[in-house]
Amino acid sequence: MIRIQSRKNEYIKELSGLVRSSEKRHAQGLFVVEGARLCRDAARSGLKLEAVLATPQAAEKYSAYVGEIAAKAKESIEIADSIAPLLSDTRSPQGVFCVVHLPSLEERGIDRLPGVGRYLAVENMQDPANLGAVCRTAEALGISGVILLGTCCDFYGPKALRAGMGAAFRLPVYMASSFQQAVPVFRDKQMRTFAAVPDENAVPVTQCVFTDRCVMLVGNEGNGLLPETIEMCDQTVTIPMLGRAESLNAAASASILMWEMMRGKEG
Amino acid sequence: MIRIQSRKNEYIKELSGLVRSSEKRHAQGLFVVEGARLCRDAARSGLKLEAVLATPQAAEKYSAYVGEIAAKAKESIEIADSIAPLLSDTRSPQGVFCVVHLPSLEERGIDRLPGVGRYLAVENMQDPANLGAVCRTAEALGISGVILLGTCCDFYGPKALRAGMGAAFRLPVYMASSFQQAVPVFRDKQMRTFAAVPDENAVPVTQCVFTDRCVMLVGNEGNGLLPETIEMCDQTVTIPMLGRAESLNAAASASILMWEMMRGKEG
Repeated sequence: MIRIQSRKNEYIKELSGLVRSSEKRHAQGLFVVEGARLCRDAARSGLKLEAVLATPQAAEKYSAYVGEIAAKAKESIEIADSIAPLLSDTRSPQGVFCVVHLPSLEERGIDRLPGVGRYLAVENMQDPANLGAVCRTAEALGISGVILLGTCCDFYGPKALRAGMGAAFRLPVYMASSFQQAVPVFRDKQMRTFAAVPDENAVPVTQCVFTDRCVMLVGNEGNGLLPETIEMCDQTVTIPMLGRAESLNAAASASILMWEMMRGKEG
Repeated sequence: MIRIQSRKNEYIKELSGLVRSSEKRHAQGLFVVEGARLCRDAARSGLKLEAVLATPQAAEKYSAYVGEIAAKAKESIEIADSIAPLLSDTRSPQGVFCVVHLPSLEERGIDRLPGVGRYLAVENMQDPANLGAVCRTAEALGISGVILLGTCCDFYGPKALRAGMGAAFRLPVYMASSFQQAVPVFRDKQMRTFAAVPDENAVPVTQCVFTDRCVMLVGNEGNGLLPETIEMCDQTVTIPMLGRAESLNAAASASILMWEMMRGKEG
């Protein structure tokens, strides 16, 4: 067991940087997970754990969790209480953290997409709380995986991980720098692409036929999907609403669209 | 135009108390709304506005909003920049606020419920962000109104108002101290009550028949509906899911349930 007492320890400084900066996470290929339950979800996911860090109190209080996490981690590190806030982005850190290897760009590449499934793709989604919420709902409804297109907020950042309640560790995720880059993969696998748009002339989602080779695309919170993305999709789809449509936020829209993709499938 | 410069002004202290305390809001029958757009939504809602307060910069920047709000308010007050944080629960206050009269308990009473409509009722919902999100979605989908049962978080608190994006001012809302208190009203108006439960033996929401006299009840984020409430409802209903059901959060569940209540109605 390694012990770290100083807030100026170089390793702690490095980890603190990973918590604050998406660039550092992706440059170093590592990210930090906070909270006993979320760390256990990471340990169970098959991702490679570099280290588990816990304050003495947290190690005692969450001993069952910390034991399970430590069994999967290369290093176990005891940290002083004063270090926890440096690794946390919450007001009252629980005191349990782990350092996890990011799946490589290849592992997450869009060309790894299996041919069969019902997928949600998000394009340029900016709010990590929305991204996390969408992943939770996708997991609950049995969506096959999530595809991140363009420049979304960081899937492995602290806010998205927390809002996702571990869905990020269980849900297959694929990335592409743009929809254009992903199109050949969808065509090759004969997957039908649906562009969700706030347009009364699009096909109501209740009238769409979804098969086990489909992708629903939802766009940025303020601006929706890019015009060129809508243009290249097989079909536009919309949520018919009786009320004030501008009140439906990105996470609620995605919930309804995913629900309709899966509706009736369960039996 | 009144000007207030001092952070120790008695009226400002009183308003600051309203922002921080649900008890004070309900004791005084007043609440504070923050932000130009939300204040305008309040002004347009027909609620009585006691005052609009703005910093000089905000009054200039949001002059169209502030003008419209001031036309509906008894008093217009210019406040020093240093006062804005006392009235705000955000990190960077915009500098526009208004003071609004709470609808009376009578106006919000469950016995004011019209006979016809499709309503959402929430019982003991604790998280204001969830309550706000649920109201937004209800408004978008054309739900007739929201019924607050038991001890929910404050509908008129700053977090719920912000998350609701003004839906609180446009959506009819009714309150009852418990489901038991509301039952005679539902029976009298021949409204069918549906209890949403995570129970595979309940009727799948896709198989429920919703008419224009119905109420969907959703419960507390952690514990769901009270057993006695479920017992007294006409029918239990569940969301059939292929995935990990515990991942569906309260706001996403409510979105799907409301969607199903309204599904097909629009066309």
